[in-house]
Amino acid sequence: MNEELMARDLAHIWHPCTQMKDHEAIPIIPIKRAQGVWLYDFDGNRYIDSISSWWVNLFGHSNPYINEKVHEQLQTLEHVIFAGFTHEQIVRLSERLVALTPEGLERCFYADNGSSAVEVALKMSFHYFKNRGEIRPYFVSLTNSYHGETLGALAVGDVELYKQTYEEILIRTLQTPVPKDRSLEAAMEAAKEFESLLERHAKEVSALIVEPLVQCAGYMHMYHPAFLRELKRICEEHDVHLIADEIAVGFGRTGTLFACEQAGVSPDFMCLSKGLTGGYLPLSVVLTTDEIYGAFYCDYNDFKAFLHSHSYTGNALACAAANATLDIFEQEDIIQKNRIKSQYIAKKLERFKDIDKVSNIRQYGMIAALDIKGYDPKQRIGLRINQECLKREVFIRPLGNVIYFMPPYVISFDEIDMMMDTVYDVLKEL
Amino acid sequence: MNEELMARDLAHIWHPCTQMKDHEAIPIIPIKRAQGVWLYDFDGNRYIDSISSWWVNLFGHSNPYINEKVHEQLQTLEHVIFAGFTHEQIVRLSERLVALTPEGLERCFYADNGSSAVEVALKMSFHYFKNRGEIRPYFVSLTNSYHGETLGALAVGDVELYKQTYEEILIRTLQTPVPKDRSLEAAMEAAKEFESLLERHAKEVSALIVEPLVQCAGYMHMYHPAFLRELKRICEEHDVHLIADEIAVGFGRTGTLFACEQAGVSPDFMCLSKGLTGGYLPLSVVLTTDEIYGAFYCDYNDFKAFLHSHSYTGNALACAAANATLDIFEQEDIIQKNRIKSQYIAKKLERFKDIDKVSNIRQYGMIAALDIKGYDPKQRIGLRINQECLKREVFIRPLGNVIYFMPPYVISFDEIDMMMDTVYDVLKEL
Repeated sequence: MNEELMARDLAHIWHPCTQMKDHEAIPIIPIKRAQGVWLYDFDGNRYIDSISSWWVNLFGHSNPYINEKVHEQLQTLEHVIFAGFTHEQIVRLSERLVALTPEGLERCFYADNGSSAVEVALKMSFHYFKNRGEIRPYFVSLTNSYHGETLGALAVGDVELYKQTYEEILIRTLQTPVPKDRSLEAAMEAAKEFESLLERHAKEVSALIVEPLVQCAGYMHMYHPAFLRELKRICEEHDVHLIADEIAVGFGRTGTLFACEQAGVSPDFMCLSKGLTGGYLPLSVVLTTDEIYGAFYCDYNDFKAFLHSHSYTGNALACAAANATLDIFEQEDIIQKNRIKSQYIAKKLERFKDIDKVSNIRQYGMIAALDIKGYDPKQRIGLRINQECLKREVFIRPLGNVIYFMPPYVISFDEIDMMMDTVYDVLKEL
Repeated sequence: MNEELMARDLAHIWHPCTQMKDHEAIPIIPIKRAQGVWLYDFDGNRYIDSISSWWVNLFGHSNPYINEKVHEQLQTLEHVIFAGFTHEQIVRLSERLVALTPEGLERCFYADNGSSAVEVALKMSFHYFKNRGEIRPYFVSLTNSYHGETLGALAVGDVELYKQTYEEILIRTLQTPVPKDRSLEAAMEAAKEFESLLERHAKEVSALIVEPLVQCAGYMHMYHPAFLRELKRICEEHDVHLIADEIAVGFGRTGTLFACEQAGVSPDFMCLSKGLTGGYLPLSVVLTTDEIYGAFYCDYNDFKAFLHSHSYTGNALACAAANATLDIFEQEDIIQKNRIKSQYIAKKLERFKDIDKVSNIRQYGMIAALDIKGYDPKQRIGLRINQECLKREVFIRPLGNVIYFMPPYVISFDEIDMMMDTVYDVLKEL
């Protein structure tokens, strides 16, 4: 049955972020159902979803509570246009997001995916300055950054693999170095570079966009929270916006509900998606300040409004999933529970030091990563490890030579053992 | 109860495509539940959703059949990463889309909203030529076009209201005139302009993007199908891609399942969203040809793959809604039923000719529009009409001075009467 669906899939589907020819040798696995951390295929195999289905799932697949809440919503209102109208789920969600995110973030603008949220933040920042009479056409991002795939989001990225092909159709942006390692010194050194960049260009720059603490698609590169604090200070001194892209790192991934908290930083914009709906449905939101909101607030005929829209903005079913997700955070003291799980993961990570080919072991909360050395990228060692782990019921998806764990928070200690021991065994056998 | 939710909404929510200051005078209406074409607020008022909640809803709100199918899916698989994995709903959906769309469209690449689908098509087209060794940095679009809000999608648009603010952060594109009216002559004249543009620029142009038959956000401007036929011929002759943006016009809106059918045209890319899930959930897809797919199909280390992705790509719940929507098309012979409703709408449109201030009455299938003349845009006559109609249980959302009807297909003849008679009365009283 796997085989039949696989053949039908390959006849018509073009998968995201995939060289489709790979699937001449590697099966596409059709998933019949999923429960908790487990994915079940049509041949009766199962796999631990160690990367939360691209970092979105928090409380397990087919979570009974989220299911119930989405089903409830389905019975009253699936969707209504979000211009001129509103609904209870989104009002409640917005109040909660404002209460949970760093101080000063008071306004919620919704979209459907992370890329679109980044585009909203970029456009709002640029438009804010224009409403003030300034043209600031540049955005600054960190080297090795990734913020999505639409052309604006891609332009502020720096991962060559995704960006280079499109250089001729991307707007020009500026890059400033990310700290080379997790030390305080590296943080201060990189901050100095940014400061010097703004000293030269502040008047042309609308915003700096950063992924706080962990550059997830940037091969899980991690840096010291002091870097964020410095960036915030420098942005403030130069009247440049700070956009925190917490799409991947938000909702508890780095150990705090939002990664910015670890630096005590309130950005001017915060982009959220992925975990926002617990892995159920596409939804994203940009939170911003009253000051920024105020720069667009005027008589209609002054034409300063932010006219961005997507048809499904504020989708009621997605908001129901998001509220259910926040309920679970509240009711089950997830951040505290994750702390214990993270410590357990940290202890298990130690063991990987035994393996010669492993280096750069690192962790922030529920993200743990390590590098495999001694292989040329063309050997695609990550893929080999992925295939070997799948045979042993563990799904991981290495980024090049970087192996990482980013499991749903409902993973049990036994399942952590299974996930990490399996990868350990596979690496040991390399 | 309306009032309380409205106040809570305005405290934290920034609505799409809205000057928020308008809501000092105009209420935001909180919707408690919706059924069929009707939206019900918390004070017991109801409104006909004459624009299908931004052109997305086809078979009514809280459609029992779609509800059932989404609920069924919720019980087995809400979402799984769509790289390396697949699921039954999306395999079935892709087969059906390939069968239903014009000949030659064989491959489905999914995303979450219309803007992202447009970005996928633009990137794929550019990347296709790059994989062939050609750099073609320009896209051509029609004057008065609209293709979405992310920076790439916005760059190929031409509606000043949405685009002009951002000109310094948009990539440069080329525009070619849309036919000035619906006549064959206007179509041929505009086609000639495009031909002359490509004679000069074909080697720098990847694709032409058009909204077939109706420029929806472009004030419901309509043109003759011959224009599309000509564009296709010219694109072929110059080896330039044709991208059909059927996000708004697809799924029966113009009278045929896809608008391209009326011109007998197979584009190189077709973008779909909105009606795809019947108005339930954000989902979009780009269909393309085997030839284009083939240009990316190679050994991984040749680095020609299309690495675009969104985390929620291929969301199983959204695909379940999409399959349920296609079921209804099949089981209830919707296109034929709509033909009868469109004729009824056409007859009722005739009556608007009585009104002096009405001009340019036009229709394609389930889209009917007219202009109100004699008002300066600053008077915002559309908004006044919107407010007056809401008092009479009809929700319309004029585009400037353009009034249009784009109701869910389940609208009854009585409801059509109520919707159109109400607007007629309001216009008559102007």
